[in-house]
Amino acid sequence: MNSVALLELLSAIKEGKITPEQGMHRLTHWPGEDIEFANIDHQRALRTGLPEVIYAAGKTDAQVVEIFSRMARQGGNVLATRATPTAAEAVCARVPGAVYNPLARTIALRQQQTPSAIGPLAILCAGTSDLPVAEEAVVTAELLGHSVVKIVDVGVAGLHRLLAQREKLATARAIIVCAGMEGALPTVVAGLVRAPVIAVPTSVGYGASFGGIAALLGMLNSCAPNVAVVNIDNGFGAACFAHAILSNPTS
Amino acid sequence: MNSVALLELLSAIKEGKITPEQGMHRLTHWPGEDIEFANIDHQRALRTGLPEVIYAAGKTDAQVVEIFSRMARQGGNVLATRATPTAAEAVCARVPGAVYNPLARTIALRQQQTPSAIGPLAILCAGTSDLPVAEEAVVTAELLGHSVVKIVDVGVAGLHRLLAQREKLATARAIIVCAGMEGALPTVVAGLVRAPVIAVPTSVGYGASFGGIAALLGMLNSCAPNVAVVNIDNGFGAACFAHAILSNPTS
Amino acid sequence: MNSVALLELLSAIKEGKITPEQGMHRLTHWPGEDIEFANIDHQRALRTGLPEVIYAAGKTDAQVVEIFSRMARQGGNVLATRATPTAAEAVCARVPGAVYNPLARTIALRQQQTPSAIGPLAILCAGTSDLPVAEEAVVTAELLGHSVVKIVDVGVAGLHRLLAQREKLATARAIIVCAGMEGALPTVVAGLVRAPVIAVPTSVGYGASFGGIAALLGMLNSCAPNVAVVNIDNGFGAACFAHAILSNPTS
Amino acid sequence: MNSVALLELLSAIKEGKITPEQGMHRLTHWPGEDIEFANIDHQRALRTGLPEVIYAAGKTDAQVVEIFSRMARQGGNVLATRATPTAAEAVCARVPGAVYNPLARTIALRQQQTPSAIGPLAILCAGTSDLPVAEEAVVTAELLGHSVVKIVDVGVAGLHRLLAQREKLATARAIIVCAGMEGALPTVVAGLVRAPVIAVPTSVGYGASFGGIAALLGMLNSCAPNVAVVNIDNGFGAACFAHAILSNPTS
Amino acid sequence: MNSVALLELLSAIKEGKITPEQGMHRLTHWPGEDIEFANIDHQRALRTGLPEVIYAAGKTDAQVVEIFSRMARQGGNVLATRATPTAAEAVCARVPGAVYNPLARTIALRQQQTPSAIGPLAILCAGTSDLPVAEEAVVTAELLGHSVVKIVDVGVAGLHRLLAQREKLATARAIIVCAGMEGALPTVVAGLVRAPVIAVPTSVGYGASFGGIAALLGMLNSCAPNVAVVNIDNGFGAACFAHAILSNPTS
Amino acid sequence: MNSVALLELLSAIKEGKITPEQGMHRLTHWPGEDIEFANIDHQRALRTGLPEVIYAAGKTDAQVVEIFSRMARQGGNVLATRATPTAAEAVCARVPGAVYNPLARTIALRQQQTPSAIGPLAILCAGTSDLPVAEEAVVTAELLGHSVVKIVDVGVAGLHRLLAQREKLATARAIIVCAGMEGALPTVVAGLVRAPVIAVPTSVGYGASFGGIAALLGMLNSCAPNVAVVNIDNGFGAACFAHAILSNPTS
Amino acid sequence: MNSVALLELLSAIKEGKITPEQGMHRLTHWPGEDIEFANIDHQRALRTGLPEVIYAAGKTDAQVVEIFSRMARQGGNVLATRATPTAAEAVCARVPGAVYNPLARTIALRQQQTPSAIGPLAILCAGTSDLPVAEEAVVTAELLGHSVVKIVDVGVAGLHRLLAQREKLATARAIIVCAGMEGALPTVVAGLVRAPVIAVPTSVGYGASFGGIAALLGMLNSCAPNVAVVNIDNGFGAACFAHAILSNPTS
Amino acid sequence: MNSVALLELLSAIKEGKITPEQGMHRLTHWPGEDIEFANIDHQRALRTGLPEVIYAAGKTDAQVVEIFSRMARQGGNVLATRATPTAAEAVCARVPGAVYNPLARTIALRQQQTPSAIGPLAILCAGTSDLPVAEEAVVTAELLGHSVVKIVDVGVAGLHRLLAQREKLATARAIIVCAGMEGALPTVVAGLVRAPVIAVPTSVGYGASFGGIAALLGMLNSCAPNVAVVNIDNGFGAACFAHAILSNPTS
Repeated sequence: MNSVALLELLSAIKEGKITPEQGMHRLTHWPGEDIEFANIDHQRALRTGLPEVIYAAGKTDAQVVEIFSRMARQGGNVLATRATPTAAEAVCARVPGAVYNPLARTIALRQQQTPSAIGPLAILCAGTSDLPVAEEAVVTAELLGHSVVKIVDVGVAGLHRLLAQREKLATARAIIVCAGMEGALPTVVAGLVRAPVIAVPTSVGYGASFGGIAALLGMLNSCAPNVAVVNIDNGFGAACFAHAILSNPTS
Repeated sequence: MNSVALLELLSAIKEGKITPEQGMHRLTHWPGEDIEFANIDHQRALRTGLPEVIYAAGKTDAQVVEIFSRMARQGGNVLATRATPTAAEAVCARVPGAVYNPLARTIALRQQQTPSAIGPLAILCAGTSDLPVAEEAVVTAELLGHSVVKIVDVGVAGLHRLLAQREKLATARAIIVCAGMEGALPTVVAGLVRAPVIAVPTSVGYGASFGGIAALLGMLNSCAPNVAVVNIDNGFGAACFAHAILSNPTS
Repeated sequence: MNSVALLELLSAIKEGKITPEQGMHRLTHWPGEDIEFANIDHQRALRTGLPEVIYAAGKTDAQVVEIFSRMARQGGNVLATRATPTAAEAVCARVPGAVYNPLARTIALRQQQTPSAIGPLAILCAGTSDLPVAEEAVVTAELLGHSVVKIVDVGVAGLHRLLAQREKLATARAIIVCAGMEGALPTVVAGLVRAPVIAVPTSVGYGASFGGIAALLGMLNSCAPNVAVVNIDNGFGAACFAHAILSNPTS
Repeated sequence: MNSVALLELLSAIKEGKITPEQGMHRLTHWPGEDIEFANIDHQRALRTGLPEVIYAAGKTDAQVVEIFSRMARQGGNVLATRATPTAAEAVCARVPGAVYNPLARTIALRQQQTPSAIGPLAILCAGTSDLPVAEEAVVTAELLGHSVVKIVDVGVAGLHRLLAQREKLATARAIIVCAGMEGALPTVVAGLVRAPVIAVPTSVGYGASFGGIAALLGMLNSCAPNVAVVNIDNGFGAACFAHAILSNPTS
Repeated sequence: MNSVALLELLSAIKEGKITPEQGMHRLTHWPGEDIEFANIDHQRALRTGLPEVIYAAGKTDAQVVEIFSRMARQGGNVLATRATPTAAEAVCARVPGAVYNPLARTIALRQQQTPSAIGPLAILCAGTSDLPVAEEAVVTAELLGHSVVKIVDVGVAGLHRLLAQREKLATARAIIVCAGMEGALPTVVAGLVRAPVIAVPTSVGYGASFGGIAALLGMLNSCAPNVAVVNIDNGFGAACFAHAILSNPTS
Repeated sequence: MNSVALLELLSAIKEGKITPEQGMHRLTHWPGEDIEFANIDHQRALRTGLPEVIYAAGKTDAQVVEIFSRMARQGGNVLATRATPTAAEAVCARVPGAVYNPLARTIALRQQQTPSAIGPLAILCAGTSDLPVAEEAVVTAELLGHSVVKIVDVGVAGLHRLLAQREKLATARAIIVCAGMEGALPTVVAGLVRAPVIAVPTSVGYGASFGGIAALLGMLNSCAPNVAVVNIDNGFGAACFAHAILSNPTS
Repeated sequence: MNSVALLELLSAIKEGKITPEQGMHRLTHWPGEDIEFANIDHQRALRTGLPEVIYAAGKTDAQVVEIFSRMARQGGNVLATRATPTAAEAVCARVPGAVYNPLARTIALRQQQTPSAIGPLAILCAGTSDLPVAEEAVVTAELLGHSVVKIVDVGVAGLHRLLAQREKLATARAIIVCAGMEGALPTVVAGLVRAPVIAVPTSVGYGASFGGIAALLGMLNSCAPNVAVVNIDNGFGAACFAHAILSNPTS
Repeated sequence: MNSVALLELLSAIKEGKITPEQGMHRLTHWPGEDIEFANIDHQRALRTGLPEVIYAAGKTDAQVVEIFSRMARQGGNVLATRATPTAAEAVCARVPGAVYNPLARTIALRQQQTPSAIGPLAILCAGTSDLPVAEEAVVTAELLGHSVVKIVDVGVAGLHRLLAQREKLATARAIIVCAGMEGALPTVVAGLVRAPVIAVPTSVGYGASFGGIAALLGMLNSCAPNVAVVNIDNGFGAACFAHAILSNPTS
């Protein structure tokens, strides 16, 4: 039951068409029933400021195509993450305007102009192997309307490369830092700036990196207090979190 | 070498008191030497927007008193976390105005008026056992100048308690959620709002909670994308991260 | 807003005292506001069939006494788990009729007659060291109105002791099995019966038992399909789950 | 030695055909020998109320076909889980009536009418990726004679979807909840109902989900007491456990 | 029902005192009922060759005294492991002849002469910190009747100390090796002998020894094939296992 | 330097052919140099009673063929474990008499008659999926000269199947038990016999079996004291350890 | 800004071409800007004594070829590790003089004569399966100019093989020891020498070796104090660390 | 048997006082018996260049005193680590010249002048909480004769503090870096120097630091190749390893 239906119901009570008792019965399951009737995706977008996204891993190509094209028909921006090349080819064949980024493994469709958000968002990665995760963050952030400054290959074993980027870092309103192996980059960056640093551990590494656990623990134990962490390889989530920071969430 | 000293040096070169070669020698280690001379704490506050904080765990009472009172003399706000009652008693006896919060285990000294930051910050905790962590966040955030809305005992096994707080959640610019055991509360909250949700796993629980690991993993795997995570029991860090979000980091 | 208040609101609309638009506004947050008004504890009992319980670990004696006595005043049965002897002494001094079980570490107050539930509930433990966990389950189950058959010291390294209890097992409607170390008892029991077996790993053991992890994993990997598992040492939860099975949840 | 054979033996003693001493010798290994002679599968079915099931993972197609068809000849219902498409094709070619469910990866043969069990069993899954596990539970439960209510895609990050299903949940006698990632859904569901909730962690997720460990821990630490847990991805076991609950185990 | 009772039953059938049907009924639960009648402790000793042992950890002093003295009255040898000094004092005050070994934390009572077992049993430990575990093995083995050769402080970082003991090792019929930290000693010993080597990881160490996990994993991964492992710190179990090897288990 | 050489050296000193100082110099590296002279493979067989074995995992087919055929030329028995079908085919083509066992993944060549060892060795496995590990143990034990009793599919969820084998178990001098999932079978077996039980956890299972960790922990925490454990899936090691038990290691 | 530019700046101030204030402004970001101007790879070589190396894992063949050939053009030595055969083929086709080592999975190009470093470097491995890791260390060390003594197959289960190499070990200035499974070899070696022992755990093993964790923990817990550890399978890092030891780092 | 005794034996043979056969008998167990007879500590010192050290953790005060004073009588330097204040008091009362360092928890006795080793050794720690571990390294290194440069409180979240120490770092021949929490400091340091960096993870931290695991993993995964790692909190081992580097191990 949406707003219109609710107003009709209350008016019908006023007009005596239904009794208060009948009205009460029909309102028993209101919040739920209303939602079933409404379009789930649109409501989520309104409520949280983020579009529905297709997590393509573990879905068949056909499923990805079906969901993507159905979402596309509703006119908003659409994003699929962790997409295989074959799924991407199939989606792009069906949905004009869909763009595949093989590095980020994303399929993006931009149908709406997003309002420009506040200040630039910086996205860093420690090494070239961390690029796919950073790129997933870049694609997501740009689809959400943010201007992104990308800084690549600034690992902590060669500090001069990072220090050379201090000016760019100082002007960012939020910073996403992707790093694998020992995962120290977010801490070092956070010590240089006032902005919130969103740390993304990556699964880059071998042996005792344990698929990103070493980086994850390093980031959680950061001695800099302006660091928070998302899941391993979760470039998409980092960008969404940055979006929640950069948009005015209460307006 | 601070700004004044640098300007004097350059003027001395201009006036021929020292040669350019001598000046060059003295500048070789400039950024480091300058820092050694300067007051470290003040610089950090300028650079990152956060005061130095005393992590009292593992320090003797005498050490805590010594560091706290030396910091207090510099005129800014001072915070000690994880303080024992005896350390707190000793600090309060020495430093007038220092306030001990036994639940949060913090000692706070407010000597400076902090500018009012943007919008309210909501701090939730799932159960009463999570209160000490939430309280550490509250004390820290208030010392940093934020107005805090505290919401207690809204665990996910009784959704109605949380849903009753929806309006407060909707007006918050950032939300800190502390939860132990299964750590599901940040995800449920994040599904209701547009604001960034900072999840703090707590060590509350027993058995397979493994001292907060269960909650930590639950939060890292949140299916809501506007969630980021800090270390277990790190209420202080969550508040600092919220401060980084709520202050304009580039101004 | 409870049922009475809702009916009044709808009647006021019918009578023209308030307009439908005004009514609509007041209904906006209905499910939540209604809940805030109601008595949380009683509602939970109605909704889930279980009383509120005080998890005393990590609470001060004063807090336990305060919560316990406030709950007791509402006339229902009250249970505190993981209670220390001093907390128990304080509660029993304040609340007449409260009974402390030092083995189970529970404080129970029986003020209401609970309806007799279906069939007997069997509660087993592998060794005498598992008794505290089993006893917590016994106290909880009896407070919930169940007749309990307790079977002690029937570890799998001496099968004859277990096989001698087959008749008792065969007549149980649900079976709780507490075991530490290798945690094999629930599997062996489940192979002998048709009833659901609720497995409770205990932290009994040393070395590679890792505080109950070995038993927990053993139970989760049970090759018998009528086994489900609760948290380590969670005798209380096992009894509540058995209660959910034995009561008719939909009546 | 089954009942008939035992009675014949005892009668032979009475009739003097064999001496008591001879009888005693033949009875020495009675429980074992009888079992060796008897049909193992049928006895298990009688004892535990569950049919033998083929866990096809790690078996060759030929082995699956051989075991399935030998079981089928005995006239009861047969179930294979974790079956590959090629194994399924081979079984269906050999055993008429066998049905392959590629989503659930099950092969089911229904040859017996199962008595209708009590009240409906609800089976939920948090996201579409959890469907294979939920479907394994559905197939198993239906083969065991239960009427199943299936509820899909009701993750906790969008509570309205779950709340809309409250009525269905309220009428279920037992509820199976499959969820990966943070695994919070069983807890939220359990807070809404009186029925026992059987939680199935799934291996859906990436990074710090660690193949289902995050969900498993979340469920074990549930703050709702009417939750018990089975192994990761064990939809089959959850359905068997529900069967043990819903059938009268002592009749 | 023991042998005598069984023969009486069968004779009664022959004599017509009871019908075969009545006999059949009485035999239904035979193996179990028989066992209930027997003396559990004695039967275990007969069946497995090992006396009942009291694992004193987690038991009150009073409980240890009670169990120990009741066992002592049956005339056999009695052993308590992990006993506290106060428990030991109480037992020794009550049971004449009981001997406390504070290093091994054992209380032993020798009332029976045990037959001399085959060949010597060597018990080694890597460092002096491993002595308590080795001593627990020594006390247990000697109570079981074995002659023990004890070799102390032969860690692998100083091979000469071990090589100097080669002759003693060569004459041992079984070897128990206790080691913490990296746990390499059992492997090195096993490479020098033909006898089975029972490896006991100890919790000696710090940091990444993780309470004995490092040693445990080292031993499980031994590149010598004549090594098997028991639980961390389980000197008692190692001695029992050696006893099973050295006694002729089938005689 | 062997005994003869040592005597010659000392005699040369007595006869003044070399000075004591020269003799002292030549003795400096004595224990090591002596070893260099011996044949490594043959020495190992003499020293430990076990032949060299090829662990084929991670070796190329060509490497396996080369090592196998070179060992075969020395006339003893040869064993390769974890061999792929293609490696096996290549070995069998080159070495007449080599036999491939695809279930056990072993290639065995019997060129020597091994003396009959004491008493039978029983090898059990809990389920049919554990068979490859059990079969590796069987092949190894038979090549080492032991008569093996194989008992299959006696999991603890159906105790009758195991109890039916009690007589075979009672006559075994040593017992190897392979089990995955919850790994409870060795404990139950050990409670029935006096013989040493060598527990082999297998990687059979899924989810929380963690590739055999659950079974491994279960076995290490066995409440039966006549159990020792080898590495996951290490059927070969279990057989070698049984060989060390069954042969007289000091003769 | 390099030294020349800095001197020019200071001279310009002296000459009055720019004011001290202008100079101060231009010096604000000096250390970073200077670095951006310099050649990063060459600077790293100067600073740390090690060439840039291509970690080829996770890079496409094309990327490896591109990076390798660009580095080669600068005239120094180039090394790629973890290279696939196809990447190696492509590199060797493009870069004359590049040499592929399939066992070590390295591609090395030697264009510069490296100065002979101090004393020999010994590189050991416990078994033949550890050879790839040892070989990676050998290739790296030789490219860095060291003379390497390689010692293979000296596992601790056959000490004589190791003891026979004592003289070689005694003359080494640094020792790298690669071992999987229980990882005990570095400890035993370290007990025989004065030189620093760099331990490299390898992922060789199965079951409870957990991909090298057992070896890693064993090495970290070494009871010999002259042992330090690098990441699992990190032969390259071990050689670089040995290089840092053997070169005079301050000259 | 030490060198003197050996020479006497050989001389006695030459002089005919004992026969070669008698000499041979006495030499049979030479390396071992000699060691048993000789002073173990002296031989170890010769072989590895390190004195015996008392690891006092887990030893009684009386044991520490006894071992310390017996070692002291032999005239060399003596070191006890992890000593409690009471043990230290007892040792200092008994052994004149013994010095207790309560921060490092060491007792050191300097009786011998150690030769000055090459170049300075730098010892850093990230925060003041890491000081005890760094101090243990300092005490050990100084007792071994090294000149130590100590650098405190240079965590990576404030890079300027570290960069200010670059000159000291550049002149060190080896560098020990102690850090807890995220453990990033060794990597950052290693990127600035050519010297080998010995990383010591400390147990400083809370929550997801897991007692030093986060720091340990961070260091093992260092992206700088001149880093090797010792056990958590092992300041003593780091100093010994530095000693092995700085002394010429082959002279």
